Amino acid sequence: MYVTQRIFAGFMRFQLEIVDAKSSARAGTIHTDHGKIETPIFMPVGTAGSVKAVHQRELMDDVNAEIILGNTYHLYLRPGLELLQKAGGLHKFTGWTRPILTDSGGYQVYSLAGNRKITTDGVIFKSHIDGSKHHFTPEGVMDIQRRIGADIIMAFDECTPYPCEYTYAKNSMDLTHKWLTKCVNRVRETESLYEYDQVLFPIVQGSVYHDLREQSATFIAAQDQPGNAIGGLSVGEPHEEMYAMTSLVCSVLPADKPRYLMGVGTPENILECISLGIDMFDCVMPTRNARNGMLFTTQGVINIRNEKWKDDLSPIDAELGGYASTFYSKAYLRHLIINKEILGAQIASIHNLTFYLWLVKEARRHIQDGDFATWKNTMVKRVSHRI
Amino acid sequence: MYVTQRIFAGFMRFQLEIVDAKSSARAGTIHTDHGKIETPIFMPVGTAGSVKAVHQRELMDDVNAEIILGNTYHLYLRPGLELLQKAGGLHKFTGWTRPILTDSGGYQVYSLAGNRKITTDGVIFKSHIDGSKHHFTPEGVMDIQRRIGADIIMAFDECTPYPCEYTYAKNSMDLTHKWLTKCVNRVRETESLYEYDQVLFPIVQGSVYHDLREQSATFIAAQDQPGNAIGGLSVGEPHEEMYAMTSLVCSVLPADKPRYLMGVGTPENILECISLGIDMFDCVMPTRNARNGMLFTTQGVINIRNEKWKDDLSPIDAELGGYASTFYSKAYLRHLIINKEILGAQIASIHNLTFYLWLVKEARRHIQDGDFATWKNTMVKRVSHRI
Repeated sequence: MYVTQRIFAGFMRFQLEIVDAKSSARAGTIHTDHGKIETPIFMPVGTAGSVKAVHQRELMDDVNAEIILGNTYHLYLRPGLELLQKAGGLHKFTGWTRPILTDSGGYQVYSLAGNRKITTDGVIFKSHIDGSKHHFTPEGVMDIQRRIGADIIMAFDECTPYPCEYTYAKNSMDLTHKWLTKCVNRVRETESLYEYDQVLFPIVQGSVYHDLREQSATFIAAQDQPGNAIGGLSVGEPHEEMYAMTSLVCSVLPADKPRYLMGVGTPENILECISLGIDMFDCVMPTRNARNGMLFTTQGVINIRNEKWKDDLSPIDAELGGYASTFYSKAYLRHLIINKEILGAQIASIHNLTFYLWLVKEARRHIQDGDFATWKNTMVKRVSHRI
Repeated sequence: MYVTQRIFAGFMRFQLEIVDAKSSARAGTIHTDHGKIETPIFMPVGTAGSVKAVHQRELMDDVNAEIILGNTYHLYLRPGLELLQKAGGLHKFTGWTRPILTDSGGYQVYSLAGNRKITTDGVIFKSHIDGSKHHFTPEGVMDIQRRIGADIIMAFDECTPYPCEYTYAKNSMDLTHKWLTKCVNRVRETESLYEYDQVLFPIVQGSVYHDLREQSATFIAAQDQPGNAIGGLSVGEPHEEMYAMTSLVCSVLPADKPRYLMGVGTPENILECISLGIDMFDCVMPTRNARNGMLFTTQGVINIRNEKWKDDLSPIDAELGGYASTFYSKAYLRHLIINKEILGAQIASIHNLTFYLWLVKEARRHIQDGDFATWKNTMVKRVSHRI
C-alpha cells in the first residue's frame, strides 16, 4: 500500500517556472494524469457534473478550460456514488477528459442552516432534495472523493462564516486540523479506484485572525501534500481582509507547491490574489452572473439587460474573440436574456468563462514577460469598470 | 414595382425531382436566396429568434437544419420590428444564414383566449407580455413579415379549432380566403426590404370537412403562389382525419409547388404525410419534448426520466450519430434532465432535432431509391415504439 502511494505521488507534480520580480505572482505548470494545468488558472464550477449551460466540447475548445471543479455534496446525492463508480468515475460519466478537482462537500453542508449539526466526528445533515439524513466524516468524505475520482481532492474542513468570533474561529480551526490528520491518513491508506492518481490538498482556515491564519498555514504546510488551499475567505469580509489573509498565508505556504484560493472571485479579486502568490481559483460568479445577464468583458462589466444595449448590434466582446463573444451581438443576447431564452444563458456562460480563462492566461503571459505588476494595475481598473 | 416583383419571383423555385411509384411521396429542391432546401424537410421552430437551447452553429453543423421557422407574433412583440429592421432582418439579427420561414402570427393570437377579438378586418389582441393592445390585419401582417425578413412568409388566416361546427368552419374559411386576397395584393404591391426575395405561401383551411377542404385547396391553388400550406390540422383531431384531409388537399394542390403541412408532428405523422405528398413540416415537439426528457431515437421513443435508464451508460443514440447523441450517455442525460441542468435541455434538443432531420433525409433517400413505401411502414413502427 505504502509503495503504491509513493508511485502515485510521483504523477502529480508542480513546476514553478517564474516568480514576478515586483510582486509575488508566479507562473507554473501542474502535471496530472489527465494533462497539464498552466497556472495561474481559473476552474469553472461544474456543480453536479455539468458546468451549467456549457457543452463539454465548448469548455474544451471555446472556453479553453484546463481543469473544472465538481461539488462532492451534489455528486454524492445525485447521481450518487454507485453510478459514478459504475461509469468509471466522474470523468467518464461526464465525458470531460481533462483534470477535475472536487471540494469536500463541507461548504455546501454548512450552508444547510437548520438542517445540519457539526460534531467532533463530522457533520450530520439533511439532503436539500428529499430531507434524507446523511453523515459526513473526514474519512468518509475521502472515500467519497475516491469514488467520484477527481484528480485533486480536498480535505474535509469547517468553513467559518464572516463575521466570526475569535474563540469560534480558533476552535473551528483546531477541529479542521484534527480532521485534516484523519483525511491525510485515510488518503495514504487507500488507493485511487481508477487508472490515475489522486492527490489531497489541505485547507488553511482561521477566519480573519492573523495569528490563527499563520498557525493554520504552518500546520497545513507541515502536511507536505502536493498542493495547498486557502478556505474561509470570500465569505463576506472586506476585500482588504481577504488580501491581507491571502498575503500572510502565501508567505507561510511552500513556494514549490500550488496554492488554491477557494471560491474567489471577481476579476479584480483574481488579479490581486495572483499578485499575492495564488495559482488556482474557482468561483460560480462567471456562470451564475451570466444567467442573470451580467457580463465580464475586456472593456468592463456589462449588465446586458440595460436599455443602453437594446440596439447595440456590435459583437459581445470583439477583443476577447471566440465564437460566443464575436458571433452574437449585444442586442441579440439582451433579447435572449430578457425573454428567458435558454440560449441567452448558454452564450453568456461561454462568454464569461472565456473571459475568466483569458484573464488568467493574460496574467500568466505578463508574469512571463516581466511586466505583470503594471499590467495588473491597468487591467484591474479596466475590468472592474462598469460600462 | 410590378417588374421588381417578377424579378424577385424568379429567385425562389421548386424543382420536383421524383415522385414515388407506390405512394404520393416526393423529393425535390427549393432554391432560395439563402440557399437550397432539399425536400421533404423538417423546420426546427425558433420562436423568438432562437431554436431553444441550440446554438446557431449547432443547428447548422450538428442538426443539419436547412431552414428554420420564426413566429411573427413573438418577434413582433420582442425584440420588435424596429430592432429587427435596424439589424437588417431576422437572419442578421440572429446570425442564421440559411432560409427562414415565418408564420403569420394568427395561430398564436387565436390561442390568446379571452384576450383577442376577430373581426372581418383582422384581430385585435392583448400582448401576453404586458397586456398592450394590438391590431393584426392581413395587410399589416404582410408588412410585419416584410420587416422581419423571412424567405417564406405565410398568409394571415384563421386557424379553426377542433372540433368545429360546419357553419363556423365555412364562414372562417371564407374569411381566410378574403384575407388571402388582401395578403396576395399587399405582397405584390410591396418589395422585400432586404437584399433577397420573399415569397408568400397561402394556407388551405376548412377544418375536417371534405367539401370545404376541396373548395379551399382550389381557391388557394388558384392564387398561383410559389408554394402552398395546409393549416388547421394537428389541432386535436384523430390522425385518420388529418391524413384524410392532407390526402384530399394534396390531390388538389399543384404538384410543381412545395406543400407545407403546418405544425405537424410526431415522427409517425411526418412519415405518413410525406407518403401523402407533403414536402415541408414544422413542430415544437422535438424541442419542447426534449426539455421534458422525451427523446425520439432510431430505436423508438424514450422517456429518459424512467428508472430503466438510470445506469445505462450507452450513448443516447449510437445509430443516429452526431456529437450530442454519441458523446453523452443515457445515464448522464437522465441525471441532467432530472436535476434540471440546462445542459440536459441542450443535449436532448440537439438530439431530437438531429433525429427529425435524419428522418426526413432518410425518407428522401428512400424516395430516391424507390423503396420509400416499404421503408416507411417499417420505420413508422420502429420510431413510434416506446422503449
